[in-house]
Amino acid sequence: MGSVLIKNGRIITAVDDYFADVFIDGERIAAIGKDLQMDADKVIDAKDRLVIPGGIDPHTHFDMPFGGTTSADDFETGTIAAAHGGTTTVVDFAIQSKGESTIKGLDTWHEKAAGKATIDYAFHMIITDMPQERLPEMRKLADEGITSYKLFMAYPGVLYVDDGTLYRAFRQAGDNGTRICMHAENGIVIDEIIKEAVADGKTAPVYHTLTRPTRMEAEGVYRSIAIAEVAKVPLYIVHLSCADALEEVKRARARGVDVVAETCPQYLFLDASYYEKEGFEGAKWVMTPALREKWNQDVLWQGLAFRDLETIATDHCPFCMNDGIKNPERKGKELGIESFTKIPNGAPGVENRMSLIYNGGVVEQRISLNRFVELTSTAAAKAFGLFPKKGTIAVGSDADIVIFDPEREETISVNNPCTHHMNVDYSAYEGFKVKGFTETVLSRGRVVVEKDKLVTKGGGSFVKRALCGSLLR
Amino acid sequence: MGSVLIKNGRIITAVDDYFADVFIDGERIAAIGKDLQMDADKVIDAKDRLVIPGGIDPHTHFDMPFGGTTSADDFETGTIAAAHGGTTTVVDFAIQSKGESTIKGLDTWHEKAAGKATIDYAFHMIITDMPQERLPEMRKLADEGITSYKLFMAYPGVLYVDDGTLYRAFRQAGDNGTRICMHAENGIVIDEIIKEAVADGKTAPVYHTLTRPTRMEAEGVYRSIAIAEVAKVPLYIVHLSCADALEEVKRARARGVDVVAETCPQYLFLDASYYEKEGFEGAKWVMTPALREKWNQDVLWQGLAFRDLETIATDHCPFCMNDGIKNPERKGKELGIESFTKIPNGAPGVENRMSLIYNGGVVEQRISLNRFVELTSTAAAKAFGLFPKKGTIAVGSDADIVIFDPEREETISVNNPCTHHMNVDYSAYEGFKVKGFTETVLSRGRVVVEKDKLVTKGGGSFVKRALCGSLLR
Amino acid sequence: MGSVLIKNGRIITAVDDYFADVFIDGERIAAIGKDLQMDADKVIDAKDRLVIPGGIDPHTHFDMPFGGTTSADDFETGTIAAAHGGTTTVVDFAIQSKGESTIKGLDTWHEKAAGKATIDYAFHMIITDMPQERLPEMRKLADEGITSYKLFMAYPGVLYVDDGTLYRAFRQAGDNGTRICMHAENGIVIDEIIKEAVADGKTAPVYHTLTRPTRMEAEGVYRSIAIAEVAKVPLYIVHLSCADALEEVKRARARGVDVVAETCPQYLFLDASYYEKEGFEGAKWVMTPALREKWNQDVLWQGLAFRDLETIATDHCPFCMNDGIKNPERKGKELGIESFTKIPNGAPGVENRMSLIYNGGVVEQRISLNRFVELTSTAAAKAFGLFPKKGTIAVGSDADIVIFDPEREETISVNNPCTHHMNVDYSAYEGFKVKGFTETVLSRGRVVVEKDKLVTKGGGSFVKRALCGSLLR
Amino acid sequence: MGSVLIKNGRIITAVDDYFADVFIDGERIAAIGKDLQMDADKVIDAKDRLVIPGGIDPHTHFDMPFGGTTSADDFETGTIAAAHGGTTTVVDFAIQSKGESTIKGLDTWHEKAAGKATIDYAFHMIITDMPQERLPEMRKLADEGITSYKLFMAYPGVLYVDDGTLYRAFRQAGDNGTRICMHAENGIVIDEIIKEAVADGKTAPVYHTLTRPTRMEAEGVYRSIAIAEVAKVPLYIVHLSCADALEEVKRARARGVDVVAETCPQYLFLDASYYEKEGFEGAKWVMTPALREKWNQDVLWQGLAFRDLETIATDHCPFCMNDGIKNPERKGKELGIESFTKIPNGAPGVENRMSLIYNGGVVEQRISLNRFVELTSTAAAKAFGLFPKKGTIAVGSDADIVIFDPEREETISVNNPCTHHMNVDYSAYEGFKVKGFTETVLSRGRVVVEKDKLVTKGGGSFVKRALCGSLLR
Repeated sequence: MGSVLIKNGRIITAVDDYFADVFIDGERIAAIGKDLQMDADKVIDAKDRLVIPGGIDPHTHFDMPFGGTTSADDFETGTIAAAHGGTTTVVDFAIQSKGESTIKGLDTWHEKAAGKATIDYAFHMIITDMPQERLPEMRKLADEGITSYKLFMAYPGVLYVDDGTLYRAFRQAGDNGTRICMHAENGIVIDEIIKEAVADGKTAPVYHTLTRPTRMEAEGVYRSIAIAEVAKVPLYIVHLSCADALEEVKRARARGVDVVAETCPQYLFLDASYYEKEGFEGAKWVMTPALREKWNQDVLWQGLAFRDLETIATDHCPFCMNDGIKNPERKGKELGIESFTKIPNGAPGVENRMSLIYNGGVVEQRISLNRFVELTSTAAAKAFGLFPKKGTIAVGSDADIVIFDPEREETISVNNPCTHHMNVDYSAYEGFKVKGFTETVLSRGRVVVEKDKLVTKGGGSFVKRALCGSLLR
Repeated sequence: MGSVLIKNGRIITAVDDYFADVFIDGERIAAIGKDLQMDADKVIDAKDRLVIPGGIDPHTHFDMPFGGTTSADDFETGTIAAAHGGTTTVVDFAIQSKGESTIKGLDTWHEKAAGKATIDYAFHMIITDMPQERLPEMRKLADEGITSYKLFMAYPGVLYVDDGTLYRAFRQAGDNGTRICMHAENGIVIDEIIKEAVADGKTAPVYHTLTRPTRMEAEGVYRSIAIAEVAKVPLYIVHLSCADALEEVKRARARGVDVVAETCPQYLFLDASYYEKEGFEGAKWVMTPALREKWNQDVLWQGLAFRDLETIATDHCPFCMNDGIKNPERKGKELGIESFTKIPNGAPGVENRMSLIYNGGVVEQRISLNRFVELTSTAAAKAFGLFPKKGTIAVGSDADIVIFDPEREETISVNNPCTHHMNVDYSAYEGFKVKGFTETVLSRGRVVVEKDKLVTKGGGSFVKRALCGSLLR
Repeated sequence: MGSVLIKNGRIITAVDDYFADVFIDGERIAAIGKDLQMDADKVIDAKDRLVIPGGIDPHTHFDMPFGGTTSADDFETGTIAAAHGGTTTVVDFAIQSKGESTIKGLDTWHEKAAGKATIDYAFHMIITDMPQERLPEMRKLADEGITSYKLFMAYPGVLYVDDGTLYRAFRQAGDNGTRICMHAENGIVIDEIIKEAVADGKTAPVYHTLTRPTRMEAEGVYRSIAIAEVAKVPLYIVHLSCADALEEVKRARARGVDVVAETCPQYLFLDASYYEKEGFEGAKWVMTPALREKWNQDVLWQGLAFRDLETIATDHCPFCMNDGIKNPERKGKELGIESFTKIPNGAPGVENRMSLIYNGGVVEQRISLNRFVELTSTAAAKAFGLFPKKGTIAVGSDADIVIFDPEREETISVNNPCTHHMNVDYSAYEGFKVKGFTETVLSRGRVVVEKDKLVTKGGGSFVKRALCGSLLR
Repeated sequence: MGSVLIKNGRIITAVDDYFADVFIDGERIAAIGKDLQMDADKVIDAKDRLVIPGGIDPHTHFDMPFGGTTSADDFETGTIAAAHGGTTTVVDFAIQSKGESTIKGLDTWHEKAAGKATIDYAFHMIITDMPQERLPEMRKLADEGITSYKLFMAYPGVLYVDDGTLYRAFRQAGDNGTRICMHAENGIVIDEIIKEAVADGKTAPVYHTLTRPTRMEAEGVYRSIAIAEVAKVPLYIVHLSCADALEEVKRARARGVDVVAETCPQYLFLDASYYEKEGFEGAKWVMTPALREKWNQDVLWQGLAFRDLETIATDHCPFCMNDGIKNPERKGKELGIESFTKIPNGAPGVENRMSLIYNGGVVEQRISLNRFVELTSTAAAKAFGLFPKKGTIAVGSDADIVIFDPEREETISVNNPCTHHMNVDYSAYEGFKVKGFTETVLSRGRVVVEKDKLVTKGGGSFVKRALCGSLLR
């Protein structure tokens, strides 16, 4: 591999902010300095640009079988879209089939991803079943770089596990020095509420949110924290959506529990009123947790500023509104036309995260530039054993770098070729205007995107992750 | 000025952790890289050493008239001791004389410091008096680099100001984009309690702590936060000492108020039982706030880990136990032999901070290496307008660098020439064993301390500080 | 004196609810039973009526010099109005003149009241000055039945006392087994805010509320609680007006502090929008604390239901809008026509309390009938050493009894002779419709009001109160 | 039936405190007055005695099949013991057999109790199974006076129900105007912890408490409150044992949720150190929740004083240590000699409650006399639809009256015939000294206990309860 010299940029990390040149030798950053005079195979002028660590999206679902179909982006289209949006690492989710080996589930996901990715990727493992005798697999997974595990309190009959499984998996994960990711919502109660709604003929998309009270998310957060506290494992709450749930995170931290939480752009920019759009359009935003009342957004932004929320992921899991067009044989949101309970849960977003957060956070002065980098990259790297390989601009780190134009304005749209490379027929943020846009993207020293063009396809690798330390020290 | 190349060190910032060489050209860091080949006037091998940003102590009182005498370290001895301990910047306090111009107070402190300091220094301004007509001085101070102001709720008749003065100063400071530092303790009530104690013949040093209930510190914290909230100014609570006070900081942050807090090594390592030592020895630790019951220490450490406490300063303000020896004409703690109320308040510590926190924090696994750097340097730099000039190791920043030996063990003692350069006849941490010790210290590129020797004396400059941004974004 | 038999009523106390007859022999209740066959001088049929303890209003200001004038009701008109409204005891406030004896202040108030009252009355003492040497007066006051003391954090230069005075008075009151009442608002800061407003030409009535942030009330609550906690005295917060302040009461109780709080009808039914009425009309509601944003009302009602608020008083302190008519030589609200800062603070209400709370509480199902009695009578009796003489319907208690028609509807108005006997030219609740109205009122066995008519004038006595126990056991 | 006149007593209710005579005509109180001159069949002199409402124990388990055996007191011995201890009403628990009708379960319990009881009794219904189609039974139960329902989060495989069952039962109970009682502990996680302990050979009684972390009780409290909040039903937490759980009750009430909680004497007077007694003796206190660390006791007492805890029940469920003696064919605690997991859970206490709480509460000045009555009688009556028939001394109420000697001292012991009428071979409070003891007990006008003698056996009736109102209004 060759070398790259990025000149004149303003380098932003989670803590620093300075002007310097960055010299990349092969896959890694070799030097940072004033007016570096190194020869390089390629020189990029980053004048008036931010030079930031490539985004890390710790929550995507590519090629995921769910809700009677499969998510519309696979590791090829998904990683290309991510790269365009300034994200250079995703942590996706391998899934254990109930009653089968988690290792087998991992193998399946390795196959799905092999040779397809344009950026680097890692896996969490979704555990759906964890009897005593299978616990040793968890150490084996850790040895293979799968150092975090996701469990679900939602989706009874599908991904749901009971509290006994939680406890066993939590104990083992804690003993192994690994981390638990939690989808925290009381799915058992929610299913009862849904049954009532359906019995009353309430089947339109808006009932997706009306049947998922925020208190049931807060309950899941409290319960999983309580179990983690007893089992002694660092906990990570995924896609926290509302003030009620955040309150429980804050209280647990106030009593010294090692819990960190992630939110997503959808909970920061969208709200429950989207479900009231005419006809079936609300189905676009049927995801779990559901969109919440708008006032929650301010509370979440404050949580980001005050560090009660530590990461921003997308939970990217797209399904077309009208799948017949792009993938004739793959079904999408239309599965739920008769009832919101059948709508595949999920929405696209992996491509839009960096611009949305830059605009809504930095431009609108809710968070600092440093915090922007921390929330979109560094904190996830630290939480999930990717640091310092990923998540910073420092000598020795992978040259996963985004050259970001803080002044460029775009309107996000399924029809804007600069903002939509995802394999899905709608945008969750249609019409949103953003200031701040990805210009050039390097993945381990390779320029993959340059001025809106994909210049290198493929080359992304699986990343074995280290053990997951606490963010709270 | 010349150049310095630091080879093979492990560089730690508030976020990063990597191995590289650092090249310093004149006063600033010019390049960081793998195996840098630059020619340098001086090469330092930092193998097996940490290379960290020089410590910033945002709370010292050199040459301060107080309690009928003057603190025992001046800007010469104080900054030399600081340098030995790995601190390369102090923010000391200029004091307004009641009824006089703050500018005049600043001039006085410029004179005290001029030509004496071995490391860089800045000033907060202590406001003792702020009628309407004097408010314009505050903007003038900001222009001169004095961008933070300290006010006292304690010490009625001396430094105390009433809530009206607080409000006026807070409003003006907020309008100016500057920050307020608060000594938060209800001195009016405490003075009443002291009167009761004295009337009852309770005059031994232990009554210093028994007359200062933690609730009166919490009250000061609540009140100053409330006023800051109304006046819209970022607040900084100095020397927070106890769980009750921390609770109020946490609650205010939970409702979105821009308040950060500092604690000190004395509250992390010492406790109220020290006052019960035989005879008058307890006077060594007569400082304000007083040392607290030991259980508070764990709460403070947790506050540091969870970011409810953001900085660690020393409140260095030494008085000899027996001043006659070192400074025949300057009185010390013996002023209070008849009554604790007359003991000059304060204790030494500027030299011991970095080792104490490294040992108690990093070695004892309460905080990470990154957090150690953040707490002892970066956060103060950001809170007080010194960043990125100070507080980090990044290209373009001042070469204020400490080469720190993580394995070296020392026992802190007034008799250990490696641990005691302060001009005071006792150590507040006598007999404390620490692992982790400063080896070499650079101040703006000049090597000032090398292997326990002061190799450059003087050369420290006043630093004009920038406006103080919020840490909470 | 004679005897009275009340037949067939539904008797409601703070805990009980039953049908029985009540026999009064002289001043006290002698028997309660089914179908009592006693001979009585007077028999009252209370069929379909509630028989409740006479209301106790623990916060009135009759004949009070304030704001350059005097409140418009004296002990004659005030107690007659109270009686019509179903209140049979008021606790008014004697005032210490600064620098003079509290005993002298008490004498003055005894003179004001002597021979004028139609119902019983007691006094709190307002302390404006409490040097060490005057503390023994407090025990003397207690011996004379003045077992509670009010201090002000508001009104600098008038009633305000500093924290040292608070502490001294609190300690003494605690030692004596008495109680402290607190006007909790940071008047020092508020005066600064007012100065800013006035300097900006903001002089209309609405600036009364805009210059009194709720946080400054919460601060007063926190501070007085903190001082009471250290001084060990039971605390009573008067006229708590908002959610921010209530939060501090709740937190203190959660940590075990003996504090109870009072609110008033004005904070439950009126809100800050009243100040925006045309012209000078907003002056009618210039009282302190100011009316707050409407959402606070729900929080206060919840506080009443959950027992975080324990009493409801009126803070009755009326000033005419146009005093020239009723009292040519006494000035009223018009004093502040040029600036809200000159408007005499206070509003009428002593007559309307029982109906307002019955209607807003019981009829609107926010509180139970028992809680209605507790909030309007029993809790105040217990908090202020009047129980069991007053505040209940039990054998041996004073026959202070209200026969209340739960179905009668009235519209409160200055023009409705049934609702307005107060000596003031407007109603604070003009046009409010209430269901539930006082029919007959007995004060120590004397029928004073019968079917809207005053049938006995005078006869009210001063009540020496017992020591004030804690409500929290 | 005849009439009874109680002379000269000091009558205490939840609010009142006065001296008077009480005249009982048949089953009910007919009159209360000074020097009543009624003729009566029996006159009791209550000089120097308290006259209080008979105790209501809302949580007993007589004749209950559990843990492979049956609780040792049936409705005969249990109600006699209760009467001796000053309790005149118990609310016991009928149990639904899994998969069978709740009505059938009720019938079974009616049979168990019929003709045996000496005092009145009512039933809660324990629901173990509640499919959609069985919900109408709940209204039928309410019509039969069973207006509260208990569900278990503990005891998987036995009484445990899942969150879906909770939700369905909660919704139905809320719609019916009835109340839910909750055993709130995460039994699923606890069972996992127990499995770990047993696998490690930890089988002694002390592991009963070590395998039941307080956080798992707090979790159950949080979860059941959250579900009740969504389902809109008043919730009643039974046998709350610790500070962690109380904290969740307080927080829920602070946000306005209708939840009240009960604690028991064992959590107020006993602690986890009892399990460490020699040999198998700790088995005496194996009950659920387990005894906790001693410091929790102060927190619970404060909760009682501040009304965060509203009732005190016994959870009386005795098993002999050595059953062979009293009931050769009924097994007791010895079932668990090999492993704490087999020890029948429960302990005796119904007889000791009133004296324990009077002594620990009133004599030790933690609660007032009124609060003593409220906690042991009135609040339970109000919470469970027994008021005003039970729970007070008022005209028209059942003459369930205890004449209580506030000065009499006893030492509780299995060998003291005055303190132990329970059919069990040990006392949970062996050696506890109490001041304050029941002297005479009337149940609906019948004198059942007089000076330690059972003078009337039998005559207790089932009480159909009314709908359960909120205590929080």
